[in-house]
Amino acid sequence: MAGPHPATATIRRAVRAALEEVSPGDVVLVACSGGADSSALAAATAFEAPKLGVRAGVVVVDHGLQTGSDSIARRVADWCRTLGFDLVHITPVRVVQDGHGLEAAARDARYEALDVAADRYGAALVLLGHTLDDQAEQVLLGLVRGAGARSLSGMPQTRGRFRRPLLGVTKRQCRQLLADEELEWWDDPMNEDTAYARVRARYGLADLERALGPGVAQALARTATQLREDADFLDALADDAVTALGPGPWAVDDLLALARPVRTRVWRRLVVAAGAPAGQVSTRHTDACDALLTRWHGQGPVSLPGPLTATRSDGRVSITRPSPVE
Amino acid sequence: MAGPHPATATIRRAVRAALEEVSPGDVVLVACSGGADSSALAAATAFEAPKLGVRAGVVVVDHGLQTGSDSIARRVADWCRTLGFDLVHITPVRVVQDGHGLEAAARDARYEALDVAADRYGAALVLLGHTLDDQAEQVLLGLVRGAGARSLSGMPQTRGRFRRPLLGVTKRQCRQLLADEELEWWDDPMNEDTAYARVRARYGLADLERALGPGVAQALARTATQLREDADFLDALADDAVTALGPGPWAVDDLLALARPVRTRVWRRLVVAAGAPAGQVSTRHTDACDALLTRWHGQGPVSLPGPLTATRSDGRVSITRPSPVE
Repeated sequence: MAGPHPATATIRRAVRAALEEVSPGDVVLVACSGGADSSALAAATAFEAPKLGVRAGVVVVDHGLQTGSDSIARRVADWCRTLGFDLVHITPVRVVQDGHGLEAAARDARYEALDVAADRYGAALVLLGHTLDDQAEQVLLGLVRGAGARSLSGMPQTRGRFRRPLLGVTKRQCRQLLADEELEWWDDPMNEDTAYARVRARYGLADLERALGPGVAQALARTATQLREDADFLDALADDAVTALGPGPWAVDDLLALARPVRTRVWRRLVVAAGAPAGQVSTRHTDACDALLTRWHGQGPVSLPGPLTATRSDGRVSITRPSPVE
Repeated sequence: MAGPHPATATIRRAVRAALEEVSPGDVVLVACSGGADSSALAAATAFEAPKLGVRAGVVVVDHGLQTGSDSIARRVADWCRTLGFDLVHITPVRVVQDGHGLEAAARDARYEALDVAADRYGAALVLLGHTLDDQAEQVLLGLVRGAGARSLSGMPQTRGRFRRPLLGVTKRQCRQLLADEELEWWDDPMNEDTAYARVRARYGLADLERALGPGVAQALARTATQLREDADFLDALADDAVTALGPGPWAVDDLLALARPVRTRVWRRLVVAAGAPAGQVSTRHTDACDALLTRWHGQGPVSLPGPLTATRSDGRVSITRPSPVE
């Protein structure tokens, strides 16, 4: 008898590696939307979990953003039961827009609901169905929002009890597993709506693959993994350096003793610790601070968000809040 | 009287910063193709160099790839003389395709010719007209060719005596300077030929800007600068670690004491030093080597290009050439 399709084998192997982290008897939840990716994840988990003695369940989050989303959630839950899951939990959420956009609000509500469900069932892990394509899109979105290793480091494979076992698997492979197993899935119309940045990133990625040849998504996903490792390491060095520097003002020589990639990260930390809103501190600001060390010609204070100012005097640099105008 | 257009002022400032590196009386050469970017660079250099007492000249490389390229080169040279340059040198090159593609062969021939010209005129610096847009395209090309910080770090601002003062300036600003100064330029038809990867990268970048909004080129260029700093630092740490490790076999504990981003770079160096062709060593190989440390379960030797094998035994790892089959 022929084995499963290679895509099915790949996905099962990835899920198995995640499940091997926990012990027999532990509960693992799969977040399933009914879309191809999380349905493939659910199907592979239903296959692998019993072999390891892991108790697997499914959480279906109903975002309530479309008419009939409750009946879709029920159909997804029923479909999961046919895979053999007995623990199937539907959790309706209320998406509250707080000015950061619908996508961000839906994501926040979803993770909160998954956390509540994980607590309720004492789950050791929650598996998420993000794929290599999602990771590549995330890197492209990061490119537009910022710059540097951290912006390009995509989604982590591991965060708390959340796991993303499919980050090395393509959407195409997920669809292949479902076709191979003669399983249905549901295509969310929101996945085609270019009002959403993620959808535009997907089209941008497709354009790039057309222009530059196949393999762009794979390269972006590999890049994310490597840059995350680099960024974690450099951030840790910067944290250590900030601790060693102590409270300001700081000696110019102590700052200059740091390697430049560490020092730019240290500047960001010092500026934020002094009270600048993290989201407003850009490379432009940290570069201007660094110029007080590396291109010193007696320049005046550097204006920073907060508002704060960085000043050099007598071989020392300080970051202070300007006294309010009376 | 109104000052120059802001674009003109920006470009002149960037060129001035580069020229301030050298002393009065020094020779600085501009590589000029007659295209908008290098023509703007030549025009700004013609304006700034005399004020600093720098002797500026122009090198026009005739790649001989199109019929009439020699007469184009002469027209570009004449145009440069009208800017006030008296040192104008045309250098014909022979582009020899060596299997790495026409673009790479033309680039190699060009840099060699520029080096010869710089030696001949005793030039302290050679200025190149690469812009922010070129840098963004370079990052996109790097994405497809590899992954990680080094692939995404684009072109350096400084390499030996070469300088790229316009890496923070857009092509649009270059055209603005030329329009502002009522200067002509020449559009190379090869810049529209999608047979070239660089041209495809340009179209890919335009697609991305359309999909994700403006600012993608700026973000890619900023990313290049930051990732180059990160990569230089991490490479230096890896070089130090390799020196400290000395010749193999290496103790597992010594390797595990290195942070992972340093260790993956150390693996690459150890494998290449053992004789693997650098271009064939991928993340897949270094990850497999690293698994000998971090996911050790008695696995067999790791196959590496060369061919080489990495083996763990008795708490030590070695990289060796398998004995030839007789």
